[in-house]
Amino acid sequence: MPSYAAPTRDIQFVLQDLLRLGESPLPGHADLDADFTAQVLEEAGRLATEVLAPLNAAGDRQGCRLENGTVRTPDGFREAYRAVCDGGWIGLDCDPDYGGQGMPYVMNCAVGEMFVSANMAFNMYQGLSHGAISAIHAHGSDAQKATYLPKMVAGSWSGTMNLTEPHCGTDLGLIRTKAEPQEDGSYAITGQKIWISAGEHDLTENIIHLVLAKIPGGPEGVKGISLFIVPKFLVGEDGSLGDRNGVTCGGLEEKMGIHGNATCVMHYDGATGFLIGEMHKGMRAMFTMMNEARLGVGLQGLAQGSVAYQNAAAFAKDRLQGRDVTGAKNPDGPADPIIVHPDVRRGLMMQKSFVEGGRALALWGATLIDAAHAGDEDAEALISLLTPVIKGFLTDKGFETAVLAQQTLGGAGFTRDWGLEQFVRDARITMVYEGTNGVQSLDLVARKLPAQGGKAMMAFFEMVKAFCRENPGDDMAAFTGPLKSASKDLQAAGMFFLQSGTKDPNAALSGSYDFLHLFGHAALGLMWARMAKVSLEKLAAGEGDPAFWQAKLATGRFYMARQLPATALHLARITSGAEPVMALEADAF
Amino acid sequence: MPSYAAPTRDIQFVLQDLLRLGESPLPGHADLDADFTAQVLEEAGRLATEVLAPLNAAGDRQGCRLENGTVRTPDGFREAYRAVCDGGWIGLDCDPDYGGQGMPYVMNCAVGEMFVSANMAFNMYQGLSHGAISAIHAHGSDAQKATYLPKMVAGSWSGTMNLTEPHCGTDLGLIRTKAEPQEDGSYAITGQKIWISAGEHDLTENIIHLVLAKIPGGPEGVKGISLFIVPKFLVGEDGSLGDRNGVTCGGLEEKMGIHGNATCVMHYDGATGFLIGEMHKGMRAMFTMMNEARLGVGLQGLAQGSVAYQNAAAFAKDRLQGRDVTGAKNPDGPADPIIVHPDVRRGLMMQKSFVEGGRALALWGATLIDAAHAGDEDAEALISLLTPVIKGFLTDKGFETAVLAQQTLGGAGFTRDWGLEQFVRDARITMVYEGTNGVQSLDLVARKLPAQGGKAMMAFFEMVKAFCRENPGDDMAAFTGPLKSASKDLQAAGMFFLQSGTKDPNAALSGSYDFLHLFGHAALGLMWARMAKVSLEKLAAGEGDPAFWQAKLATGRFYMARQLPATALHLARITSGAEPVMALEADAF
Repeated sequence: MPSYAAPTRDIQFVLQDLLRLGESPLPGHADLDADFTAQVLEEAGRLATEVLAPLNAAGDRQGCRLENGTVRTPDGFREAYRAVCDGGWIGLDCDPDYGGQGMPYVMNCAVGEMFVSANMAFNMYQGLSHGAISAIHAHGSDAQKATYLPKMVAGSWSGTMNLTEPHCGTDLGLIRTKAEPQEDGSYAITGQKIWISAGEHDLTENIIHLVLAKIPGGPEGVKGISLFIVPKFLVGEDGSLGDRNGVTCGGLEEKMGIHGNATCVMHYDGATGFLIGEMHKGMRAMFTMMNEARLGVGLQGLAQGSVAYQNAAAFAKDRLQGRDVTGAKNPDGPADPIIVHPDVRRGLMMQKSFVEGGRALALWGATLIDAAHAGDEDAEALISLLTPVIKGFLTDKGFETAVLAQQTLGGAGFTRDWGLEQFVRDARITMVYEGTNGVQSLDLVARKLPAQGGKAMMAFFEMVKAFCRENPGDDMAAFTGPLKSASKDLQAAGMFFLQSGTKDPNAALSGSYDFLHLFGHAALGLMWARMAKVSLEKLAAGEGDPAFWQAKLATGRFYMARQLPATALHLARITSGAEPVMALEADAF
Repeated sequence: MPSYAAPTRDIQFVLQDLLRLGESPLPGHADLDADFTAQVLEEAGRLATEVLAPLNAAGDRQGCRLENGTVRTPDGFREAYRAVCDGGWIGLDCDPDYGGQGMPYVMNCAVGEMFVSANMAFNMYQGLSHGAISAIHAHGSDAQKATYLPKMVAGSWSGTMNLTEPHCGTDLGLIRTKAEPQEDGSYAITGQKIWISAGEHDLTENIIHLVLAKIPGGPEGVKGISLFIVPKFLVGEDGSLGDRNGVTCGGLEEKMGIHGNATCVMHYDGATGFLIGEMHKGMRAMFTMMNEARLGVGLQGLAQGSVAYQNAAAFAKDRLQGRDVTGAKNPDGPADPIIVHPDVRRGLMMQKSFVEGGRALALWGATLIDAAHAGDEDAEALISLLTPVIKGFLTDKGFETAVLAQQTLGGAGFTRDWGLEQFVRDARITMVYEGTNGVQSLDLVARKLPAQGGKAMMAFFEMVKAFCRENPGDDMAAFTGPLKSASKDLQAAGMFFLQSGTKDPNAALSGSYDFLHLFGHAALGLMWARMAKVSLEKLAAGEGDPAFWQAKLATGRFYMARQLPATALHLARITSGAEPVMALEADAF
């Protein structure tokens, strides 16, 4: 059985030492001093390790069952869900007007990482609700908010997002689900939706589906899509549950992982739906919560990497096999722990340096979302640019980290008993949902990069330059040197797109995926440089545990020396242009 | 359901146009003209696609069951196994004196790739037999060969390899299984072995276990290990089956993939065993068949990548989503097939260029094994050097290719119905067994590279140089340029090991994994350069289908432009030395 220890120390480092949350002038941040956030993290960590993590492997084995239209979640999920509701975790960053705790989004992420590491399939039930709550909060009428939000924020009702249909996932302009206007102002929703996470389950009294559908006679394609609220049980004016609505779960998807979460085929058969937001503006409504949703998936990738790494490190310190080539480290034992072997360490350092760097990037991104919510347009532009990077890079690397951790265990990593293979299977979906990572790269290069004349990209470059200018010391050279070089590669790639993309759009699009990874490395490089600066300052000031700062510096130096040079490879691929990628006729594949 | 089309055209290209098998002076090669090998491939391809592939998904779902000590394989496996025996496939490259067909090992690999693509879990039953047959053939007495080989070559008995114990896998010096000499010259074998593939099953009348054990009083560590034959049923002098031996299956491992293959815990309880080869020389006996076994696992990785790629390409040509940014390609349909999108193509080209390059490398390696068997010492030295590269690189990249193919399918790739996720799960074990890829890299850098004063490595460099010298034309520059550069990176890495490794062994070992990948890329670069040369010659001569040669050239150019530059990244990591990898105290992980 795998174990999980909540990394509260490291999260607290990022929140307080790196991001200085307690000093932020943003609304809702005044209370977030070190004592308070430590307390929140401790509580969440306890719930994650004591309640959620023990259900993870069992939930994977048992999975969900569809019985007479009802989905039964794995044993223990109902009790755990109640504990999450009772702790007020679902509404952590929700509007206090509807029962939320009003904390910033970054706290939701800090806590969320631990919940996802402990039990990703379980946490998705509330994760999906979070998206639906945001949508209703941002676009619902006052009456809709009053009707749905208090119950959803408390967790007694959950929410879903219904986008995909059998013939369309990415290309939503093709959706066929129809919404026919009724005399009472409601709509009759008819169609089939697939891959609906938590579409049906036994954890809550009601499920509030948010459904994309087309009102007949509207514009073609994505411009004719509207968003609807379709409750599983209709809700009376007094908030009481009424008739069962015409929405049913037609089947559960059998899949590679996240077996504890019900992935549903949903049938809408003239179900009563209520328009939310403006008619035909459903895509816009969806997009307003896209940054949060995508950052949340990036965090899932990171979280799976994090728990996998922990188990790999524990195994490597425990398993005795072979001898340290420079001399036995455990001479009285039959062999040395495998952590003495350089190649085992190489794998562990790759895992550790990604997890800590990625954590910093995700939480920094979350503070940008908080700033954007507070009206900071520069933060809004920057996080829009960074969102596909955070989603794509953290999920690709999170999966890779889980695979590396599995490899640390050798044969044991392939067996179910050790649990590493579940982290790999669960992490795999994060590269796909909320827009595949290929779609993220398209969004990055075709939309985000050129937005506002490249303003946000320029701001990132300026941020790197300023940091390097302000930290000229020799002790920072191992960080600023590689960071400058990575940033130069990123600039060169952007320049290549600018020069070639106007002549041939495929030249830029053939390099979009490599650009996302190039950017991801540069962003992690910036995070590590910032963490190094803080660590050196703390060491100099004699604050805290020197071993913590020294480990941080050593881990950062590994990332700069061994991982950041990947930017040159991505640049080489990008500048090779479209020809190698596009030369073959489709028939030749 | 995934599909599989046997890639006989491409395998035939490698065998005849690239490796010129029909012209080889090696023993047993005289018959291998184009017509004959085409016929063999057609027959094997038919068996793979019509019999083995249809059982793959079902075998994964059903798995194996242990019932009263007997393992039941999935439905249909018995019939399929009989078909494989009837076709004479198990003994394809075995000694005709024992009923084999006497073909070279390369033909076994060419056929094996298809069998593994079609159904990896199933094919392992005969794959393990193959290793045991080789061991008995190489080290058994005449009487042992006469007793066991005819039945094993025919497939009515199968074989296993028993190495791992709960506390040791890589470090076999620690094994505890005991072999106590008996008065009749046999040994009583007692101990527990784990992760024994095909350790027990219902496909054959008897199972011949090859077991590593220690004779009490022998030398410590690996120098005191001997190899024993332990049949499930003892065999009478007339070849008839006698008493059940004291070896039983104590349990089946639950694992991530290859569910159709029984991974057994084996209990030896005073079982009767017969020494094979010399006393205390069991490791040496195991090592003589290591090259074949490891190349076979590399081929498994490649084969999973190959079938995954096929399904990804078919999906990409069929799935309609979005529009070609340069203009609609399917204007009458609701959207274009996703193969029009550059990023989808990027993924497919990565898959295709690996699969075709890797196939060439594996089959070239097999011809080196054939040459080594015929007494060619240079070939023996070269394949010893290349074996860890082929095993490690083809399995890492085979898995990566399966993951990429899964990604091409988006959400569908995560569901069981489409079958891609099974290829990913099955491919994952290849990075682990027959020595983890980390152990391969250690073998490469610490043993193979310095062997005989680096003779084999020098031979590889000379081979690259000679090829580039002999092919100076402009039409080859897109291949020889990157190849030279990759070879230079490989030389620089070797030089770094030479200079730093003597002072600090960790400096070389910290770079071993990157060296393996650097070498793998350089080797695939050489393969692509050779394939390009053949393709240009055929085009110039007007032989064959021009579209085939042009596709080969375009695929090769992609590999050289987009994949080969990875050598510089691996070199940068290697030359960063041991410090970044080894700096942290074990406690800090």
